[in-house]
Amino acid sequence: MSSTHLGTPKGTRDFGPQTMAKRQHIFQNIQTVFKKFGFLPLETPSMENLSVLTGKYGDEGDQLLYKILDSGDYLKRTTVEDYQQGYSKLMPKIASKGLRYDLTVPFARYVAMNRHEINFPFKRYQMQPVWRADRPQKGRYREFYQCDADVIGTSSLICEAEIVARINEVFSKLRIPDFTIQINHRKILAGIAEVIGAPEMLPELATSLDKLEKIGSEKVLLELNNKGFDQQQLDALLPVLDWKGSLDTLQHKLRDFLSDSEIGMAGLLEIETIVDYISKLVDGDSNVTLNVTLARGLTYYTGTIFEVSVNNGQVGSVCGGGRYDDLTGIFGLPDVSGVGISFGVDRIYDVMEHFDLFPEGQVGASTALLVAMDEDSRNYALKLLSNLRSREISCELYPDRAKLKKPLGYANKKGIAMVVLLGPEEIESGKLTVKIMATGEQQQLSEEQLFDQALKNAN
Amino acid sequence: MSSTHLGTPKGTRDFGPQTMAKRQHIFQNIQTVFKKFGFLPLETPSMENLSVLTGKYGDEGDQLLYKILDSGDYLKRTTVEDYQQGYSKLMPKIASKGLRYDLTVPFARYVAMNRHEINFPFKRYQMQPVWRADRPQKGRYREFYQCDADVIGTSSLICEAEIVARINEVFSKLRIPDFTIQINHRKILAGIAEVIGAPEMLPELATSLDKLEKIGSEKVLLELNNKGFDQQQLDALLPVLDWKGSLDTLQHKLRDFLSDSEIGMAGLLEIETIVDYISKLVDGDSNVTLNVTLARGLTYYTGTIFEVSVNNGQVGSVCGGGRYDDLTGIFGLPDVSGVGISFGVDRIYDVMEHFDLFPEGQVGASTALLVAMDEDSRNYALKLLSNLRSREISCELYPDRAKLKKPLGYANKKGIAMVVLLGPEEIESGKLTVKIMATGEQQQLSEEQLFDQALKNAN
Repeated sequence: MSSTHLGTPKGTRDFGPQTMAKRQHIFQNIQTVFKKFGFLPLETPSMENLSVLTGKYGDEGDQLLYKILDSGDYLKRTTVEDYQQGYSKLMPKIASKGLRYDLTVPFARYVAMNRHEINFPFKRYQMQPVWRADRPQKGRYREFYQCDADVIGTSSLICEAEIVARINEVFSKLRIPDFTIQINHRKILAGIAEVIGAPEMLPELATSLDKLEKIGSEKVLLELNNKGFDQQQLDALLPVLDWKGSLDTLQHKLRDFLSDSEIGMAGLLEIETIVDYISKLVDGDSNVTLNVTLARGLTYYTGTIFEVSVNNGQVGSVCGGGRYDDLTGIFGLPDVSGVGISFGVDRIYDVMEHFDLFPEGQVGASTALLVAMDEDSRNYALKLLSNLRSREISCELYPDRAKLKKPLGYANKKGIAMVVLLGPEEIESGKLTVKIMATGEQQQLSEEQLFDQALKNAN
Repeated sequence: MSSTHLGTPKGTRDFGPQTMAKRQHIFQNIQTVFKKFGFLPLETPSMENLSVLTGKYGDEGDQLLYKILDSGDYLKRTTVEDYQQGYSKLMPKIASKGLRYDLTVPFARYVAMNRHEINFPFKRYQMQPVWRADRPQKGRYREFYQCDADVIGTSSLICEAEIVARINEVFSKLRIPDFTIQINHRKILAGIAEVIGAPEMLPELATSLDKLEKIGSEKVLLELNNKGFDQQQLDALLPVLDWKGSLDTLQHKLRDFLSDSEIGMAGLLEIETIVDYISKLVDGDSNVTLNVTLARGLTYYTGTIFEVSVNNGQVGSVCGGGRYDDLTGIFGLPDVSGVGISFGVDRIYDVMEHFDLFPEGQVGASTALLVAMDEDSRNYALKLLSNLRSREISCELYPDRAKLKKPLGYANKKGIAMVVLLGPEEIESGKLTVKIMATGEQQQLSEEQLFDQALKNAN
């Protein structure tokens, strides 16, 4: 068998023990915050019927859906004409399921399905992988985790302020010091389109504005020009491109600019209310910046939108979300407003590696490795294992007979705190030889002393 | 859109908050035990290259693999002749990846890939979903979780004894009282085949013996007869069919029976050693039963095999595993022995529901729900939220303005312990009205008293 078989599929990764310890650190902190804010867990299947997924993420999204071949001889349900008409004709007959693309659409499907049992407003968190047949690149994988928390069944702007509080608490727990929560409102974008005289061109405007940070204002204006915006419209747009900062500094400009747009003023009023709530809910700096050019791609957002980036983190957005007024409408449950946020664990991981923010000694290895010199010591060691574990001390017995060098090397590599050597002398005297790996120090301890020492050294 | 779209794919399930709380209880207990025994976490991708998966689970297993359509217009790489030659010709050209079928083969692939970095003996645990395109039925799903712990890189029988200790500890933590760990050894099965004069018929013998509990000895003998075993062989086999019990009661019979089979005696000797180790490692009843007809389907086992069932649990096996001498050989790394065990969370869940073993009050809802009567109270509530959370008390603010009935109903359904009512009077007096949901009792508390009360009521 050739060695090429040994890889994982492109864009996917194994997570070994060292990496897993760090990932668990991130997941646990996010989960703790979600729970503290009153969110309850939900899990949905990895596969959904394609009818649930298709058409929810735009044409590009549909292309990126992973489709699963139906089981059995699915070709029996097709004809050679289907084949000859190609992909789009054959595919629906041989694949009826796809892998989850995000956690929001399955959540909406769940809410619509269980509308009569759900206790609204429903606050759920969900931490599961999603799959996208995207071109892999730095910070972009084909399988990656999302950690979402959404509230559905209320349009209260308290929820938006709570999102900002939640982001601050997660990043504070992870000790990520320097990040920015950019916010905007889809209605402000609509207002801008209206004011510059291109209300019907909002989608085109939003798509181009979203690229501002990446390609700069000159190229954005050029792109808009190519899309059909005239010079007068672009001139009117020009000042807006610089509006990024605190609400305080932008409020007057925005009120002036949007004064003739009802929808724009409505969006601004909501942002004002949210910023006021945030000032009460979050102690100190909330890290919020208003950016009137922030648009975010997903079509289902209708209200406030959020995007978090770590300054100098070099991975783009680590967290994003927003309000959607009618996400469950597509599943037959109209007029249910929701708002949510998604943490991208993989990018947060990269940022934390980049800034060296993971705590030391996280691997979670055993506290003690027992090493038995002969068969009698081995029997003694088995009982000692049981005694240590009954005190909730994690431990293991080196399973093979080997010279001391091997078990010590094993303990060292694994990060085990103490090695307990058991030979005839130790067992006769009742004094066990204990080596503290960090210092190399060797002690003679009774079993009771060993228990105390182990509890002190517990990982 | 028709309501049929709303379902999850056949054999898959959503897990809402109530169910998730119970599932998390199981996962956390299993993980705690795995860690305590010195296992470190690993995660592998949901997808593997089909070359990694195919041929590892027998023909039936290959049929049950979920295959993922390659992205892009995969038909371009095919011809109409491929199509006309059918499934087996077309499939490899349009699908190169499949969903994980178990956790053992991806683990073996990981070990072979990372052989130079791994610290052997490598003890890893892995808790991830697997997928099988099986016919769904009670207790059998198309997506389900496995929780595996394997040691690889040692042939020490200590590991087998540790498996028994681990199972006992997990089931004790979950308060599952009455279970049986059946063990056997593949070499004992080989010995039996040898003794009855059909050494080359071992696979056929094993497959039929495995059905003994389900279909009874009469049908097993009939099946073996159909497979070509003659009457003399079946007569020789007959006594073995009853041999199930403690090693003590079976040891002499087995020694007699297997005395002429070198391989059979080798298997028995290993079982004797393991049972001796267990007696030292496990306090009290180890729940182990030797069952010489236990075979287990998977072809990669070569040594001791395990299967755990809950007595009267009505779901079949909840846990199984065994030793494999050459699992990584298929990936180019020969002669590495390993042994592992897999806990089936979904079946353990069903058993625990059946016996009503889940602890009360597990939902993990917030401790306190704040209800604000007007805009001023809402501002006060936002600060109170922040104060409660800074004390690690989970809490939420009812986001909408509503009569008291709605928030109380919400708190009640969600299992929130206390509701804090905030109106102009409360804020002026500094005495908050707190309703304890379990008793209906209402108290007037200062903020400090509220913090104390909340810490007492924390879920």
